[in-house]
Amino acid sequence: MTSHTVSELLSKDIVFSEVNIKGWVRTFRANRFVALNDGSTLHNIQCVVDFENTDEATLKRITTGAAVHIEGDLVESQGKGQRVEIIVKTIQILGDSDPETYPIQPKKHSFEFLRENAHLRTRTNTFSAVMRLRSALSFAIHKYFNDHGFYYMHTPIITGSDAEGAGEMFKVSKLDAKNPPLDEKGVVDYSKDFFGKETNLTVSGQLEAETYAMSLGKVYTFGPTFRAENSNTSRHLSEFWMIEPEVAFLDLAGNMDLAEDFMKSVLSDILKNNRDDLEFLENRLIEEDKTKPQLERSDMRLIEKLNFVIDNNFKRVSYTEAIDILRNSKPNKKKKFKYLINEWGTDLQSEHERFLVEKHFKCPVILFDYPAHIKAFYMRLNDDGKTVRAMDILFPGIGEMVGGSQREERLEVLKQKMAALQIDEKELWWYLDLRKYGTAVHSGFGLGFERLVMFVTGMSNIRDVIPFPRTPQNAEF
Amino acid sequence: MTSHTVSELLSKDIVFSEVNIKGWVRTFRANRFVALNDGSTLHNIQCVVDFENTDEATLKRITTGAAVHIEGDLVESQGKGQRVEIIVKTIQILGDSDPETYPIQPKKHSFEFLRENAHLRTRTNTFSAVMRLRSALSFAIHKYFNDHGFYYMHTPIITGSDAEGAGEMFKVSKLDAKNPPLDEKGVVDYSKDFFGKETNLTVSGQLEAETYAMSLGKVYTFGPTFRAENSNTSRHLSEFWMIEPEVAFLDLAGNMDLAEDFMKSVLSDILKNNRDDLEFLENRLIEEDKTKPQLERSDMRLIEKLNFVIDNNFKRVSYTEAIDILRNSKPNKKKKFKYLINEWGTDLQSEHERFLVEKHFKCPVILFDYPAHIKAFYMRLNDDGKTVRAMDILFPGIGEMVGGSQREERLEVLKQKMAALQIDEKELWWYLDLRKYGTAVHSGFGLGFERLVMFVTGMSNIRDVIPFPRTPQNAEF
Repeated sequence: MTSHTVSELLSKDIVFSEVNIKGWVRTFRANRFVALNDGSTLHNIQCVVDFENTDEATLKRITTGAAVHIEGDLVESQGKGQRVEIIVKTIQILGDSDPETYPIQPKKHSFEFLRENAHLRTRTNTFSAVMRLRSALSFAIHKYFNDHGFYYMHTPIITGSDAEGAGEMFKVSKLDAKNPPLDEKGVVDYSKDFFGKETNLTVSGQLEAETYAMSLGKVYTFGPTFRAENSNTSRHLSEFWMIEPEVAFLDLAGNMDLAEDFMKSVLSDILKNNRDDLEFLENRLIEEDKTKPQLERSDMRLIEKLNFVIDNNFKRVSYTEAIDILRNSKPNKKKKFKYLINEWGTDLQSEHERFLVEKHFKCPVILFDYPAHIKAFYMRLNDDGKTVRAMDILFPGIGEMVGGSQREERLEVLKQKMAALQIDEKELWWYLDLRKYGTAVHSGFGLGFERLVMFVTGMSNIRDVIPFPRTPQNAEF
Repeated sequence: MTSHTVSELLSKDIVFSEVNIKGWVRTFRANRFVALNDGSTLHNIQCVVDFENTDEATLKRITTGAAVHIEGDLVESQGKGQRVEIIVKTIQILGDSDPETYPIQPKKHSFEFLRENAHLRTRTNTFSAVMRLRSALSFAIHKYFNDHGFYYMHTPIITGSDAEGAGEMFKVSKLDAKNPPLDEKGVVDYSKDFFGKETNLTVSGQLEAETYAMSLGKVYTFGPTFRAENSNTSRHLSEFWMIEPEVAFLDLAGNMDLAEDFMKSVLSDILKNNRDDLEFLENRLIEEDKTKPQLERSDMRLIEKLNFVIDNNFKRVSYTEAIDILRNSKPNKKKKFKYLINEWGTDLQSEHERFLVEKHFKCPVILFDYPAHIKAFYMRLNDDGKTVRAMDILFPGIGEMVGGSQREERLEVLKQKMAALQIDEKELWWYLDLRKYGTAVHSGFGLGFERLVMFVTGMSNIRDVIPFPRTPQNAEF
């Protein structure tokens, strides 16, 4: 008798027969009904124990969290709430779970408590749904790029360059921490370190991805990136995963087309394949909303929000137009924005991005042609000399989801921009080589994976969408 | 007129018509024939320039490495060596490539030279083939696990635990490197560091993967791992990618079944989908072999070696049997092994592993039940009290490809093993929790991704199968 998963037993085309299953007890009620889960699906299978013919000692060990092996007959259920159930013939306790000390009881736990027990939190419905969706999103992303002729590349995690300028970096070292070697000037001598130079954890794989785009054509990265800023908020992680496609011969308009098609395709995949987990999380949010004041409740339900992205054309609006709209908007005039929009050149905040998407355009928005001075050195300068071919994609509820640009492909312009920011050409000799030998228009974008998981699951704290979050003062597990 | 890729134009079902393509010049011969590549395939497309009606200045700029935009007619080729070619109507130089300084000329470059130009080396046939295969292998791996009900999980890169014992670690810190804060004992005070404790780069995601296996059932990791050993060899990287599946309710025999099925399935995918790149690399090896003395030449061709794994059952042999075979083997008796096998308990070297696979059994081999003292603390102790349920899978040419085990699921036994190795229980309280609450038999294995890419591409230096290798004294790019 082969072993089954709960998912298989609950599928519509299962044949009623003798079955054999292992899993963990979620609840045991009336000394009779075991709700068994094995992670293969959100749902439990009901297993009916013949308590009159099961010894007392065993019955006592059927507790929440215990691992059990059940053999029995799969039959149509007599009760309400499930189509099928297992009439248990034998139940064997594989691993006990002491109800006095087991942290995950069948009751509501705060997310904060579950974060402290992150090694056990996928034993709850909410976190198992979130992590199954995280996995499904990862696969949908790999599948999209594979289907569209992109090559996946692993850019380095340890980097000798700190020129990317995307944020503060963590140092990676093997030097004696207490007594590092010093050079004659009394400065730490990294030439004696493991890599013979100062090294950090990467903040982005983009620059390296460009090297491969300029030979393989279409590439993407999907790997961990790091920020050492001391930001203890619900939107920041010190370690997070990023997706960065990079494409040769693609201009900014093509980049927008790619990003829009990509986002719609990935979300459609999830809607098609992960309905159960989405519906569970949607209901969770509806319940949560009931406890909130009217004004803080969501405008859209979870699945509605996904369809909002899939069904609408993304509105393409220049930064300059957006500033005009925001300056003349009601919340700006009535001083409802926390950050008022007065002049061209200011960076947008989440409240502005959400206003454009949710109130003004009522569709996802792509802002483009940003002021050069608020964007990175590698973005292509427009002929006006003051804006760059950058784009940000704004989603409802969350604001910026994607940031990208056409890259500066002209050697002399790039050198000037680096000089202005005092970025050493010697640091990025290889990046400049791409502009010396066979340069061409090319573009790409970055997507913070955890932002996407938050959007899809409706979780409001980024620490709840990654297995073991790293944040200031926290590297547990 | 939409843009095409070289791969599309060379496909069998292309319709002859006006076409439009962008790519890089590989060669330009007789002032007439451009071999154009865009990374979409190993192959170039021949573009025939009407040199009599093209201005001299443009012709001079058609050099190796230049980026060009060509419009013309796709026709059946008149010449030998290609089925179709493009009769060029217009050619536009997008980015020049100065033949005086461009490093990648149409001639043989040493791999060492190309490593120093790792940002340009995918502009060669060998490295573009290697990196396309690396990408295809990544996708085949994700697809296998997705198709088999596994969830992909991202285990943390920065870890507060150094209990894994798999090797030396890199320190991650934000402390002032020159003047770190010291505590009253004069020791570096990591409680003042970013995470409030000492942190390192992970050597394995296995322990964290076990937490998810014990709730979601079947999970796997695919992420970067690190070793700070000062090993400057052709087989070691300081930063490499690892795949680690972990499955609840699976014993060692099931683990072997999984690993064997997984390896065969992934290699079959590659053989089916990436024939061109494989054949190119096979021919490269044949040419290389001709320059070697007879004894150093490969026994098997590249594709033959992949089929050797796919077509043979993996022979399962206990460590104890293997030691007997090796002790009585010719190379041991004639002292041809560098490390002679004298007694039970010694660890095997690559030469022994290869002897078992290539000479003795003539098939992939799974060794199991290793002496406990040469394996990690978390492997399940057998009833004999001296061996553990470990397995190593050995492949031809390369030796160990996979290492795995059934995990110790018994709390008391695990605690004893940790105590013997002086691993602090407080460090791994969460790992012990898995044995306290609903413990069960479970197993997993680890596969070094770069070893697999070496096996599939036939590359002999591990630095040549990852985009930007990190090794002692080297963190360039």
